[in-house]
This record gives sequence, C-alpha cells and structure tokens, in this order.
Amino acid sequence: MTRILGIDPGSQRTGVGIVDADATGRARHVFHAPLLLLGEGEFPQRLKRLLDGLADIIETYKPDEVAIEKVFMGKSADAALKLGHARGAALCAAVMRDLPVHEYAAKEIKLAVVGQGGADKVQVQHMVGVMLGLQGKLQADAADALAVAITHAHVRSTALRLGISTKQAWGRK
Amino acid sequence: MTRILGIDPGSQRTGVGIVDADATGRARHVFHAPLLLLGEGEFPQRLKRLLDGLADIIETYKPDEVAIEKVFMGKSADAALKLGHARGAALCAAVMRDLPVHEYAAKEIKLAVVGQGGADKVQVQHMVGVMLGLQGKLQADAADALAVAITHAHVRSTALRLGISTKQAWGRK
Repeated sequence: MTRILGIDPGSQRTGVGIVDADATGRARHVFHAPLLLLGEGEFPQRLKRLLDGLADIIETYKPDEVAIEKVFMGKSADAALKLGHARGAALCAAVMRDLPVHEYAAKEIKLAVVGQGGADKVQVQHMVGVMLGLQGKLQADAADALAVAITHAHVRSTALRLGISTKQAWGRK
Repeated sequence: MTRILGIDPGSQRTGVGIVDADATGRARHVFHAPLLLLGEGEFPQRLKRLLDGLADIIETYKPDEVAIEKVFMGKSADAALKLGHARGAALCAAVMRDLPVHEYAAKEIKLAVVGQGGADKVQVQHMVGVMLGLQGKLQADAADALAVAITHAHVRSTALRLGISTKQAWGRK
C-alpha cells in the first residue's frame, strides 16, 4: 500500500487530498481538506501558513509520495507569479521531507479520472466522488487534489506491473 | 548591529549577499555568492537544492532579517511562473526560520543604492562595490542581492531613528 498526497496549489487556496493506493491502482480515500491560504497579512506569512499546514499534514498522514498538477499558464504574468510562489512552497514542503514528487498535466489527470482529456471541473468532481465512494458534493480544490493523487495511483500501478518508471508508464496509457 | 541577508531569486540562478548594518544604516560586507540552481534534474530537485543552499547559508551566517526584491512581471506568464517557484522557495527558507522578510521594488533599490530609480544594472553593480569597498567586478546576481540588503540597511536605520516601521520609513525617503 502506498500513500499518495495530492496537492492542488493556488495563491488563494490550496487543495489537499490523500489516498492509499494498492498495486492494482485502486485508490482508497484517506483525507481531504481545502487548505486556506488566508488573505490576511503579508505574502511571506501566507506562504508560511501554507508551508506549515502542509508540513503538519505530512507529519500526521505520512504519505510516501506526492502528486501535483503541472501548470501551463494562459493567464497573466502576475497571476502566474503568485501561483508559482504557492506551488514552489508546496514543492518545498514535499522535498524537505525527501518525498518523491510526480507531476501530471491537467489533461492527463482528466484522462485518468474521467476518461477524456477535455472533461470539465464538474465531471472531475463527480468522478472523484464516485471512485472514492464519497457522499455529498466535494469542494473543487479538494477534488482536484484527490484527482491528481488518483492519477498517480493509476500510473504507478501500471509502472509496477510492467517494471518501468512512472514516466514511461504514462507514455503507454 | 543587524545582519541582513539579501536574496535575488531566479529560476536559473539565485544571488545571495549578506551585510552587517549599524544603526546609522552603514553596511559592511560579510558574504556574497551566486547560488546556482543547477539545470540538471527535475524541477522539484532543483528547488530543493536552492532551499538547502539557503538553509545552509542561514545556518552559517545567522542573519537577523531578510531583504528580497519585489517583482512585477512584464515577461511571459511562463517565465513568471518559474520565477515565482524560485522566489517562493527563497521565502520559505526565510519564514521557516521565522526571519522577518522585507520586500523592496527594483526602483526603490536603485534609488537607495545609486540615487535614481532608473539606474541600470551596471551602475548598481558599480555602486554596490564602492559602498562595500569590494575589489574587482561583482557578479550581477550577487550585486543585486547585496543591493537589496543595503537598501534594507538604509530604510531600517531611518525607521529606527524616527521610531517608525520600515514601511513608513520608506514612504519618508
């Protein structure tokens, strides 16, 4: 059993989801929470809250690996800069503990969870709930974090089965 | 005496400079180095190298405060995203140790070091060398890191003298 921490970083709010994955790629829900990056205070202090929040979650749930969405920015440079800070802090929380980090593009995540790269947010939210047997509507950031964790669970099992790296496994999907 | 760590973050290379500032705002050179974010390996591993490198420098030189350039991006969203990651990691290295972080815009730094907000890189490099009594040509990233540290030394002394915050002190300059 491998415990995967999925992170959906944002400069306002970072989603966090944890699943346990078995060798077949099946994922069991362990935890999810929207991790608020509170709007108050200076930006460095908000980053610290994110870093500390992630460190606490890593300490409590002891994930083996981390999965995070790759980002390609179509938005403004200013938005990209802010997102970069949050994503950089999230990666720091992972690498500080020497956790392996796996990055997946949004299209790859949608393909893994919904079955089509062009799926919308609502479909992802719905399918994550179904796959993990969760009741009620999932908050969007938490759903995205769980989705990237599930994606890694699948890719990982393919890699294990074929005795190849997760990067090669993705290429085969 | 207050020890100030100046950081000039970049996705390829991060400049680091340390000065000791007295209450009059005079800065004495302690250390500078270009901290390479090596191009090899995955991006999370490169961020880890930056984080570890800064942590080592903080451990060794024990700065009291951190000064870092504020950035406004005119470049592409993609460049902004990468810079954001590096700057986010640099801020993490500071806030993890609970060091106060002070941010200054490029214009403010040029004004403090050269005396005019529109000064170019070469003028900043030159003046930093003169102010700190350094021999030989300073590498550009190190000069920028020392320049932001010197700026904070000045603003800090004004704040101390007037019994106000550094933000208010800057407004008065």
